[in-house]
Amino acid sequence: MTYPLSHEVQRDPDGRLRHLITLEDLSRAELTALLDLAQFYVRVPGDLPARDQSLAGRTVANLFFEPSTRTRVSFELAARRLGAETVNLDMQSSSRMKGETVLDTIYTLEAMHVDVLVMRDAQPGLPASVAAAVEPFVSILNAGEAHLSHPTQGLLDALTIRQHKRHFENLKVVVVGDIEHSRVARSAWQALTTLGVGEFAIAAPADLMPTAGDFARATRYDRLDRALAGADVVMALRVQRERMQEAQIPDEATYSREFGITADRLAGARADVIVMHPGPMNRGFEIAAEVADGPRSVIRQQVTNGVAVRMAVLATVVRNVQARRHFQ
Amino acid sequence: MTYPLSHEVQRDPDGRLRHLITLEDLSRAELTALLDLAQFYVRVPGDLPARDQSLAGRTVANLFFEPSTRTRVSFELAARRLGAETVNLDMQSSSRMKGETVLDTIYTLEAMHVDVLVMRDAQPGLPASVAAAVEPFVSILNAGEAHLSHPTQGLLDALTIRQHKRHFENLKVVVVGDIEHSRVARSAWQALTTLGVGEFAIAAPADLMPTAGDFARATRYDRLDRALAGADVVMALRVQRERMQEAQIPDEATYSREFGITADRLAGARADVIVMHPGPMNRGFEIAAEVADGPRSVIRQQVTNGVAVRMAVLATVVRNVQARRHFQ
Amino acid sequence: MTYPLSHEVQRDPDGRLRHLITLEDLSRAELTALLDLAQFYVRVPGDLPARDQSLAGRTVANLFFEPSTRTRVSFELAARRLGAETVNLDMQSSSRMKGETVLDTIYTLEAMHVDVLVMRDAQPGLPASVAAAVEPFVSILNAGEAHLSHPTQGLLDALTIRQHKRHFENLKVVVVGDIEHSRVARSAWQALTTLGVGEFAIAAPADLMPTAGDFARATRYDRLDRALAGADVVMALRVQRERMQEAQIPDEATYSREFGITADRLAGARADVIVMHPGPMNRGFEIAAEVADGPRSVIRQQVTNGVAVRMAVLATVVRNVQARRHFQ
Repeated sequence: MTYPLSHEVQRDPDGRLRHLITLEDLSRAELTALLDLAQFYVRVPGDLPARDQSLAGRTVANLFFEPSTRTRVSFELAARRLGAETVNLDMQSSSRMKGETVLDTIYTLEAMHVDVLVMRDAQPGLPASVAAAVEPFVSILNAGEAHLSHPTQGLLDALTIRQHKRHFENLKVVVVGDIEHSRVARSAWQALTTLGVGEFAIAAPADLMPTAGDFARATRYDRLDRALAGADVVMALRVQRERMQEAQIPDEATYSREFGITADRLAGARADVIVMHPGPMNRGFEIAAEVADGPRSVIRQQVTNGVAVRMAVLATVVRNVQARRHFQ
Repeated sequence: MTYPLSHEVQRDPDGRLRHLITLEDLSRAELTALLDLAQFYVRVPGDLPARDQSLAGRTVANLFFEPSTRTRVSFELAARRLGAETVNLDMQSSSRMKGETVLDTIYTLEAMHVDVLVMRDAQPGLPASVAAAVEPFVSILNAGEAHLSHPTQGLLDALTIRQHKRHFENLKVVVVGDIEHSRVARSAWQALTTLGVGEFAIAAPADLMPTAGDFARATRYDRLDRALAGADVVMALRVQRERMQEAQIPDEATYSREFGITADRLAGARADVIVMHPGPMNRGFEIAAEVADGPRSVIRQQVTNGVAVRMAVLATVVRNVQARRHFQ
Repeated sequence: MTYPLSHEVQRDPDGRLRHLITLEDLSRAELTALLDLAQFYVRVPGDLPARDQSLAGRTVANLFFEPSTRTRVSFELAARRLGAETVNLDMQSSSRMKGETVLDTIYTLEAMHVDVLVMRDAQPGLPASVAAAVEPFVSILNAGEAHLSHPTQGLLDALTIRQHKRHFENLKVVVVGDIEHSRVARSAWQALTTLGVGEFAIAAPADLMPTAGDFARATRYDRLDRALAGADVVMALRVQRERMQEAQIPDEATYSREFGITADRLAGARADVIVMHPGPMNRGFEIAAEVADGPRSVIRQQVTNGVAVRMAVLATVVRNVQARRHFQ
């Protein structure tokens, strides 16, 4: 199956972001504007969450072809706190539905005046294919696409770093784990590279390291200690333990011993290092419990930022679609 | 199991429609009033959907004993856009629950101040049985009952035809497929016959043709070409491929060759013929993709009309229950 | 696994109820205040349900590790009628998730500004463990915990009795069934004992009778007829038929013959006896259909009261958390 390139379909003819499928072609100014709007929606835990009526009368549908309760709930709350109606569709895996059937489901939702479709899929290509097919008043938000893209995660990671470090220029950000298969790493790399991060480092066993052409300009480490030296930010990826059991990949115990983030290891990073994880964590495996819950962890703050980022993205694409209609 | 007749239980003692279980006994004026209200709720795709507060403070529960994401979402959005709260109950098949258990579930919802119960079931009789059992302030809406009735589908089909043809009198409407087992065909036949359609035609292989007493006054065709001659409206039914594999029924290839709606075949109909399908489609089987997506297709418009029709039905039964309470 | 005691974690440092995990340590005045607020939210069936905006801007999450459609819907409607957003999480059994994983899910919801977590679990200890772990602005409501506690059920039972009998002092309340394993019986016993009920009686076969130290001051009957003599209130528990099939427990036919509530048996109670059941009923087994639907049954009223009680509890804990923040 061939499919359109994400960065070629996510803008309207005037260049406005109408979908969010990849962070690949977003400019530094665009990323900054999204982070600024997200920051506007951030509240301290315990305070009431931000709410407005930016999406009053709008409908947001969640189509998760790959299950994810936490991301689905994050989008759902983001949409409702902007005044939208939400509907959840329990989908089978898209690879088990025929392509046309998926599109007919999309056309059905479009005909029901659904404004935004939030999609997650284990296969690559669906968000861009759908974005190319829907009417100009429908927006597609990619909530996780194969190993390729998870743009709202990249944004929430950038926002979390900005809250703690203010500027990206001189930072060393280290992402640790199965980089090759990680949409989280790819979207973080796209966002942080554009935002001008000093050093974007990836640390992984050889078998989980991406090929040379991938992650351009990232520094590569096959030993965690070296990667952590001088690190301002450490992001541990969730290890897909199923994958670990496949051939040619280090066994679990070796991986955890060599690449697990522990308090001892973290001592080699900068004193004000922050530790991130996209969740859900395998505690004691890719990250020690004492680190996850320790003073350097900003993992829960990432979750809070996730809702704010999704509010910002929802408000932005709906406003852009409206603007296009108005000036057309 | 015996159960009450749907048309005998769906009105209150003053003759108001309190439930909608069948279109069988609705008068032309009643159907027209429902279509008029639905039309009031129709918006162009891309515009915001119609919203009001007709159901403010009301609660609508979806009880689908037979799964259907699209119909469930259509009712859910219709209810929410009228200001109602909605709750979805994942039900097992009613045939696997004891009758009393289903009724106790209904009584529980009634006691929680649920105003409208939307039900779909693969077995016949449940909506009427429930309608006969609930308190006078609860309405039952049939969202699909065995092979018997799917009244909101019949209404949305009539509305779609009216939007394109204005008058029913001189139309030839052809329904193609497994007529015998189709609640869509039955509800369309009831609505369109009452609305005075010129010719209601059914086209099917002999094994899928209803018995002689059924579909009174419908013209019957065992060859699609003859049925299509002069047709203003063609409605292809979804083929249940499981059923096809049973004995005495034509094999899939033969069915598709003889009764599938293709562009070639459609050339025998009137030049302004419209093509309908209740969805979800088996593209390339009962309907060619080029027809489904072609200029004569009104299939997506049917989906838009579906939400509007369900808003009209919800608003009508809630208003009627209120009126009865007021004047009692 | 050890876990904190429920009554030690459910109050804030000023003694306010911040969670509701058990009725064990609630004073008569506290129970009365909850019942009074619940009564304020009760409406006659057919009238619109009570609604206000006590929870505007708040988010309530349902985490049911043990499925229960009716209790989940009751909490969901209670929260929405107070203006809250609700999200439902389909959870696996907590015993199949690691404890840390459950807590990480909780921390994720907390970080998303979820204010109230409604939990049901087949294992004991989770609500108190979670209550001890969350930030001071999050409330935990126990919607059913193993055989131990179901506090909103105890409150709705007390409210139903109060509506019919006005005062608790001289009442004989009889609970019949598998007392040993019943959280419904335990919460009813806690509420009614504190409210000063005249006689709290339990009736069960020997194998289902709790040990001597449990249900302090309850009178015990091994024959139903003796228990029912002079009873003002009879509450039949749902029999878990799976459990019946285990060893050492009377067979189903014997149980039903000796402890099923029938009209004949009920003749031995007071003439104005009321009959209760927490639902869902096994009609014809622990309760005869003619009793469940008869003039002495208040079973549907219990359901109506359930929503009102949950509104009262939600409004109370949210108000208490707010008060603590304000005066801190």
